[in-house]
Amino acid sequence: MESTIFEMKPIGFVQSTYTETNQVPKGCGATHTAEGVLEILREYEEGLTDIEGFSHLFVIWAFHRSEGCALLGKPPTDERPHGVFATRSPRRPNPIALTVVELLRREGPRLYVRGLDMLDGTPILDIKPYLSGVPAEKLRRGWLAEAEKRNQEQTESQH
Amino acid sequence: MESTIFEMKPIGFVQSTYTETNQVPKGCGATHTAEGVLEILREYEEGLTDIEGFSHLFVIWAFHRSEGCALLGKPPTDERPHGVFATRSPRRPNPIALTVVELLRREGPRLYVRGLDMLDGTPILDIKPYLSGVPAEKLRRGWLAEAEKRNQEQTESQH
Repeated sequence: MESTIFEMKPIGFVQSTYTETNQVPKGCGATHTAEGVLEILREYEEGLTDIEGFSHLFVIWAFHRSEGCALLGKPPTDERPHGVFATRSPRRPNPIALTVVELLRREGPRLYVRGLDMLDGTPILDIKPYLSGVPAEKLRRGWLAEAEKRNQEQTESQH
Repeated sequence: MESTIFEMKPIGFVQSTYTETNQVPKGCGATHTAEGVLEILREYEEGLTDIEGFSHLFVIWAFHRSEGCALLGKPPTDERPHGVFATRSPRRPNPIALTVVELLRREGPRLYVRGLDMLDGTPILDIKPYLSGVPAEKLRRGWLAEAEKRNQEQTESQH
């Protein structure tokens, strides 16, 4: 079982104004308001039927420029290292990324969306409807909440 | 570009009480309260560092028993067909599944979680922290909301 390999192919590609990773707002807390297009390949267009009714979508995509894997890494939001599964680092065992976007409109195989954090040309592996969230009062955000608190205290002590 | 193939390997396997698909509550609106374990392979255990701080996790896994792809399909919650990207159907171009689970506790490479909808032995491809949701007032759920409404009206008219 542990030697099973799953082969994933692009179902489409992202059209984004970001062409280099340093242009993408960094860190888990970053706000992503960039607009762009998810251009789905014609052979999969029928699979978009009725997608217009959803306000938000999960986009599963490939870190196609990422090389290698680091099980421990320092994310941009913290000076301390964390496990890769507790971060959104691109250097993962499998180069899978996940972004929630807002669907603005559809034109045939083109989905116009807001909230992109992908580079132009990024391969899309899957799209799913975003259906519900975890209530804020039940959500704990681990090291990220702590790092945000530290950063805020530092900022305040500098004033 | 369109011929690019990404190879994904299991980082671990699900331990679940579900052994057949007909045991898993069906449909997007189904509530998943099943508890079980995400057993991560020892070689990736370091990647779990600090994951205990998060209350909820995204689990990206493989539909390892799914065969083939249907771009249009009838989900269990509706009698009308919908595009695969507007459903959570297992018959997708890439056999990728996504589940949000609640992390109850960690014991070494074992994550005890609630909210499983996977079969026992399901390969796990990735785990990411769940960080935020889309506010309920901004969320539209498309055909699913309509199907739920129809089902409810049918139920009411039968009384």
